[in-house]
Amino acid sequence: MHQKNREIISKDKSISDWYTSIVEKAGLIHYSNIKGFMSFLPYGWAIWEKIQSHLNFAFKKEKIKNVALPSLFPYSDLVLESSHVKGFKPELFLIEHKGKEILNDPYVLRPTSEAAFCKLWNQTLRTYQQLPLLYNQWCSVFRVEKNTRPFLRNSEFYWQEMHGAFSNDQDCQKMVDKIIEIYSWLINKILMIPTISGKKTVNEKFAGAEETYTLETIMPDGQALQSATSHNLGQNFAKAFDIKFQGKNNAFEMAHTMSAGLSTRIIGGLIMTHGDDNGLVLPFNIAPIQIMLIPMFAQKNKDVLKITKQIAAELKEYEVEIDENDNNSLGSKIADNEIRGIPFQIIIGPKDLENNKATIIVRNDTKNKHQVEFSKIASWIADKSKEYDEALYLKAKERYQNQIVIIDNQKDFINALNNQKVILAPWAGNENDEASLKKTTGATARCISIEKQITNEKCFFTNKKAKHWVYFARAY
Amino acid sequence: MHQKNREIISKDKSISDWYTSIVEKAGLIHYSNIKGFMSFLPYGWAIWEKIQSHLNFAFKKEKIKNVALPSLFPYSDLVLESSHVKGFKPELFLIEHKGKEILNDPYVLRPTSEAAFCKLWNQTLRTYQQLPLLYNQWCSVFRVEKNTRPFLRNSEFYWQEMHGAFSNDQDCQKMVDKIIEIYSWLINKILMIPTISGKKTVNEKFAGAEETYTLETIMPDGQALQSATSHNLGQNFAKAFDIKFQGKNNAFEMAHTMSAGLSTRIIGGLIMTHGDDNGLVLPFNIAPIQIMLIPMFAQKNKDVLKITKQIAAELKEYEVEIDENDNNSLGSKIADNEIRGIPFQIIIGPKDLENNKATIIVRNDTKNKHQVEFSKIASWIADKSKEYDEALYLKAKERYQNQIVIIDNQKDFINALNNQKVILAPWAGNENDEASLKKTTGATARCISIEKQITNEKCFFTNKKAKHWVYFARAY
Repeated sequence: MHQKNREIISKDKSISDWYTSIVEKAGLIHYSNIKGFMSFLPYGWAIWEKIQSHLNFAFKKEKIKNVALPSLFPYSDLVLESSHVKGFKPELFLIEHKGKEILNDPYVLRPTSEAAFCKLWNQTLRTYQQLPLLYNQWCSVFRVEKNTRPFLRNSEFYWQEMHGAFSNDQDCQKMVDKIIEIYSWLINKILMIPTISGKKTVNEKFAGAEETYTLETIMPDGQALQSATSHNLGQNFAKAFDIKFQGKNNAFEMAHTMSAGLSTRIIGGLIMTHGDDNGLVLPFNIAPIQIMLIPMFAQKNKDVLKITKQIAAELKEYEVEIDENDNNSLGSKIADNEIRGIPFQIIIGPKDLENNKATIIVRNDTKNKHQVEFSKIASWIADKSKEYDEALYLKAKERYQNQIVIIDNQKDFINALNNQKVILAPWAGNENDEASLKKTTGATARCISIEKQITNEKCFFTNKKAKHWVYFARAY
Repeated sequence: MHQKNREIISKDKSISDWYTSIVEKAGLIHYSNIKGFMSFLPYGWAIWEKIQSHLNFAFKKEKIKNVALPSLFPYSDLVLESSHVKGFKPELFLIEHKGKEILNDPYVLRPTSEAAFCKLWNQTLRTYQQLPLLYNQWCSVFRVEKNTRPFLRNSEFYWQEMHGAFSNDQDCQKMVDKIIEIYSWLINKILMIPTISGKKTVNEKFAGAEETYTLETIMPDGQALQSATSHNLGQNFAKAFDIKFQGKNNAFEMAHTMSAGLSTRIIGGLIMTHGDDNGLVLPFNIAPIQIMLIPMFAQKNKDVLKITKQIAAELKEYEVEIDENDNNSLGSKIADNEIRGIPFQIIIGPKDLENNKATIIVRNDTKNKHQVEFSKIASWIADKSKEYDEALYLKAKERYQNQIVIIDNQKDFINALNNQKVILAPWAGNENDEASLKKTTGATARCISIEKQITNEKCFFTNKKAKHWVYFARAY
């Protein structure tokens, strides 16, 4: 019912058109009448709720507590940290009136909530015994954007933003690292998307941060997608907002703060990484419907329905649905379920009752229809679901490894970029060099490699002795 | 750590001051710098998350799906249903600029989302096979308010809003009733708050609705709190937004729509209904921490800590915390846990290891310390937790029954109102009568009684033959 028109544009032909057709045909979102604002339909929102439940689980283990701060805060709070406001000023939605009253200090629709959390801590933090403060909120944020694309770039998008305050830098940095570890688990092990991780360069780090750590994924077109970031804010915000506490020796000390976020943008990465010309491909761990049971002629053949319900009961630890609707053809049902990326479809027809076997269709392996005995379906799914997710990861990883090119000169840099590659290159440029490279090529420094160390290489751009290996790419 | 100052204003002395002190001292919220906007701190948000999980469970059984529509929509959408916009126009927050561009059609921060859902359905509903559409969203809404109070009246508050579209009025009305049944279950059986249910009068119904059904609770000061509402919108919105579908016979028909909502305001009702001079009292079913285990001298006495952890393991189906901090005195721990309304505190000291018994303190029964054998704690809690919740309900119900007064004349009406009563009275007034009664007494019609039928009574206000029994009260 989600799609009248089965035609999906080929991914190889135009990944951009393919992407647009997928998000609509799979029933993920509907564009609203305001550019850059979209409605999450049930299936799209269910994917986000799955991500939420995985992250909430991981956060709870770290004693991170969910809170909800106001969607609006005074503009005067945003300007307290001067480099922070510079990063967000052009993108703000403002409330300038309250009823008939003109607001001298307009309200900002939060583009991010550092200002709100810091104000709260300025007003409530008193003693070291309250530290660390580990807060997280699930909310939407607002940024005026010119070029918008569903999930990837929106004027309103959903995310979690985790904010922490600490008595010292070590604890703060530990949590910055811990959150990257959690994001890495979610993206690599649950969403099955390979990532590059590293530190941002000065030009690319978060406005107001000392250091930004990032997980970048590579899309099939060679563009990078910044998927999650964790920022050590040092004492920049604490000083700007006067976040002090009384330490063990009664003296007042300045707090250290950090923040981190992962947004609905990752759903865009999920679609582009695994999807194919038949539609979405969702990892088993994240699929809102993991298994679709299709009893044929369910309304006429009560025996088929009965055995289907028995099998569903044996699969009750999974997200299972039974499609009892006899109006649509089997072929159109299978195609619909493929568009929605449902990992396993189990088809049970009247003839299957004779030999006690069902037909199982696996989403990333559509040519292969598996005949499985009724009594063995549960154990078959248990085995196959792990394989299924691993296969998705391996396939993505293979592509991704082929997309990274090491270069040492500007000509190869341009060639690689034109061939839709991500570039790993030795770098010693300053902020102006980075800006000029961006201006001339459209590529940005995605992150400084953690693994690869400089030995004797020269910077491909300045010819000076290189300081780091840096990943460069065009980016979403 | 939540409260420096233990003093709570007495509830009998000033329920208003008592209430204000409770919400702060229990660590539920913190006021933001914008009037009417507040931060939910971890403990306050955890109560709302509990409510969310109960309602999500009930909605799932009815096949209601969670979605997320934009926080903003064009003002021109809001005005399509003319009585709807009249109800909300004075309370709107508007976005008038986007960057430097002046918006001719400003964006409205949603005060409620009928306009957004109706626009979505206008654009996506095609055939009767898509019906019913049963959507719910968890979000915050925005209304300019002059007099604000935490939870009870805010300029931004959180709620769920359920929106449904149907092919006929019967299905629509059935869902209107079903949602009231779900709210009634949540409020009466989970939050343990007695309610009055009925239909709103013309003056008090939702702007744009055919009928509004409501659950009203009575606060200890005799004021009513509208706790949840479900609206049959008939075809008013469908006509205004042109929500048509092709029926079985291929002809186009107009949809029937409904909406329903329950907000964080119910947390205000929860606090006022059960709280006492020692702090919050939370029903077991809704408490973020159901059982607090307090091992005495936990850092020194490893045997005490060991047995405490064993007991915690036996209670793992509940929300259990262990307070291992030896810095605070037992007395201050108990007082803190009482302020937060934790139903059961289990205290285990070195001497208790000799006779294998712990001391259990029950929140609504503080004089009575129970000695319970370690091996029987789990079954004791299982029994007592049900009793505990029932006792809260009965106590509230007893108060509430004493607060309702039946009257048949204006003098008694005024007297009852001055004595902080809710009034049940025979009524035949029209809209002007209702408005004039509100103007002169401050009381509003809370709802038309479902149970009590008119026989021969005359309206206490107009002296005409009465049509209904109506509940009147001042309201939050």
